[in-house]
Amino acid sequence: MKKIINDPEALVDEAVEGLAAAHPDLVRISLCPRYIVRADAPVSGKVALLSGGGSGHEPLHGGFVGRGMLAAACPGAVFTSPTPDQMLEAGKAIHGGAGIVQIVKNYTGDVMNFDMAADLLRAEGIEVENVLVDDDVAVKDSLYTAGRRGVGLTLAVEKIGGAAAEAGMGLAEVAGLCRRVVANGRSMGVALTACTVPHAGKPSFALAEDEMELGIGIHGEPGRERVKLEPADRIAELLLGPIIEDLPFERDDRVLLFVNGMGGTPLIELYALYRKAAEIAAAHGLEVERRLVGSYVTSLEMAGASITLLRLDDEMIRLWDAPVVTPALRWGA
Amino acid sequence: MKKIINDPEALVDEAVEGLAAAHPDLVRISLCPRYIVRADAPVSGKVALLSGGGSGHEPLHGGFVGRGMLAAACPGAVFTSPTPDQMLEAGKAIHGGAGIVQIVKNYTGDVMNFDMAADLLRAEGIEVENVLVDDDVAVKDSLYTAGRRGVGLTLAVEKIGGAAAEAGMGLAEVAGLCRRVVANGRSMGVALTACTVPHAGKPSFALAEDEMELGIGIHGEPGRERVKLEPADRIAELLLGPIIEDLPFERDDRVLLFVNGMGGTPLIELYALYRKAAEIAAAHGLEVERRLVGSYVTSLEMAGASITLLRLDDEMIRLWDAPVVTPALRWGA
Repeated sequence: MKKIINDPEALVDEAVEGLAAAHPDLVRISLCPRYIVRADAPVSGKVALLSGGGSGHEPLHGGFVGRGMLAAACPGAVFTSPTPDQMLEAGKAIHGGAGIVQIVKNYTGDVMNFDMAADLLRAEGIEVENVLVDDDVAVKDSLYTAGRRGVGLTLAVEKIGGAAAEAGMGLAEVAGLCRRVVANGRSMGVALTACTVPHAGKPSFALAEDEMELGIGIHGEPGRERVKLEPADRIAELLLGPIIEDLPFERDDRVLLFVNGMGGTPLIELYALYRKAAEIAAAHGLEVERRLVGSYVTSLEMAGASITLLRLDDEMIRLWDAPVVTPALRWGA
Repeated sequence: MKKIINDPEALVDEAVEGLAAAHPDLVRISLCPRYIVRADAPVSGKVALLSGGGSGHEPLHGGFVGRGMLAAACPGAVFTSPTPDQMLEAGKAIHGGAGIVQIVKNYTGDVMNFDMAADLLRAEGIEVENVLVDDDVAVKDSLYTAGRRGVGLTLAVEKIGGAAAEAGMGLAEVAGLCRRVVANGRSMGVALTACTVPHAGKPSFALAEDEMELGIGIHGEPGRERVKLEPADRIAELLLGPIIEDLPFERDDRVLLFVNGMGGTPLIELYALYRKAAEIAAAHGLEVERRLVGSYVTSLEMAGASITLLRLDDEMIRLWDAPVVTPALRWGA
C-alpha cells in the first residue's frame, strides 16, 4: 500500500479538515460527529439536501456541498456507512424550515442509518423525505446491497435536486424530482485494478494483468463477470449496451452522458472512452444534450470507469444548467 | 500495462476528439496538425495565449482552453514535444490582431519547437512573445531540461495570463505579467509510483514498495533523491520546505497554495496533504489568499503529488479571480 497518509484511522478527518481549509468560502465542518455543511447554512425557507456514505468516493459527497447542490454531507469511514448521529446533527445544522431530502445510495448499511436518521430528525420536528439511488444495472443483489447499487447517477440526483431546492421548490416537489432522476438514469462500471482500503492495507481483490471486472461496484464488490481486458471502444460498448437496454433508452431520447473515472484512470483515457460512448449513443438515435467527463464518483485509486446515462426532460435540463458553486462542481456563477 | 485504450498510437487523437465531443460549446479541434482552440477563436483585438507540450499531463493544456485562459493548446504525443507546424496553424487560427503569447514549459524539445514556431508565426506577420516556465526547485538540470523544469505553476501562468488577455491588456503587458508569475512561483513534486507510457508498455522506472522519489519531474525524470516512504505530514514538509526557502517566501507574503495530484492519487489524500501544507504555510507567516486542490498537472496514472506556491500581488489576485470557462477550470461565469 503506497498512499500519502498519516495514520489510516485519521485520514478521513484530515481530508475533511483539508476540504474546509481549502474552501472556507464554501463549506464549514464538524468532526464530532463528522459532517460538512454549506458555509451559509441554514438557508431560511428552502429545502436542504443531505447526503453521505462511506469515504473513498471523493469528491462525492463532500465536494458537492455548496450553493445549488448539497446542503450537507456526512462522510463515514472509508467504505463504511455514516452513523445516524452524523445525519441528525448535520440535518439540524442545515434545516431552514422547509424540510430535508436525504439522498441515499442503496447499500444496506446506508439505508438503515439514513432511515434511523430520518426518524431522529422527525422527532426534532423536521420533515424528511428519503430518496434511494439504485442506478447500477450490473447486478441485482450484491455484497452490501439488496437490489441495485447506487453509483454514478448520484451526482445527477444531487445536482438537479440541489438546483430545485435552491430555486425554492417544496419538499415533496424536490423529492419527487430526485425520484424522477433515479427512475430515468442507469449506470455501469468496469475495474482494471482493485483499490486498497487504508486500514486494510492490501488490495480488496486481485485481477490478473490481462483481466478486467465488468459491472464492478464502487467498493470493489464483484461485478457481472471477470473478462479479458478489452480495448476502450469495446469497453464503451460493454458498458453502454446493458444501460441502454435496461431503461430502455429509445430513439430521440435526450440524455446526459456522464463518463466517470474510478480514481486511478487518467483523463486522457476517460476522454477517449467518452468519444466512443458518444458515438454509440448517437448510433442509437439518442440526443446527447448534456455531458460530463471526470473522476467524480470514485473508489480510491482504482483504475476503471463507469458510464451513466440519464433521460432528460426540459425541467431537468434547466436545473442541470442552473448555477452550482461547490468544491468539485462549479459553473454558471 | 492496464489502460482503457485502443491503439496506443491513436490515444492522443481519440482523447482530443473526445474533448471536442464533450465540450462543443467551449472548444474546436484540428487533428492534422493537432490542436485545440477556443470555440470563438479568433477573438478580435485581443492577445491570444497558446500553450502545449507532451500529452499525458491532462487536463494541462487542452482542458484549459476557453474563455479567460488559453486560446489554443497543441498536444504532442505522450511525453513528447509538439511540432512547430502545430503551433503555426493553431496560432493562425487564434490570432485576433493583437499578437500571441506562447507559454512554454522548460523542456529542451518544447523550447526548441516553440522558438521555431515563433519564427514561423512572425514570418506570417504575427507578433509573438515566448514565456518560459521553470518553477521546479527540485533539480538544476534534468533528463530533458537545461535549467529548471516547468511544472505545476504553468496552470497559474495560464490562468492569470489568460485573464489579462481577456481583459484586453496588450502583448507586452500580458507577457510581462506571465513572467512576473514565473518569477514569483515555485513548485516541487513527489512520486509514489511510476507511470506507463502507452506505446512503451512498461513503467518508466521502478520504486520499491517502501520508497518514494522526491523532486520527481512530470515525465518520471529522476528527482532529488529516492527516500523511504514518509507520512503525509512529512511529505508536505519535504516539498514545502525547499519551495519556501528558494524564492524565498517571507512572512506576510500573500500566496496561492496549489496542491496538485499526479493522476493516480485520490482526492482524499490530496486534501489531507493540503491540510498540513496550509499549516506549514501559516507557521511561516504566509497569508494563504487563494487555494487550489486537484489533479491538474499530471503524469498519466502516477501516484504522487506536487505543491506550488505563488506570491500574489493585487493584480494577480484580481486576474486569478476573473471568470474562467474551460473544460477543467471553471468559475465566476
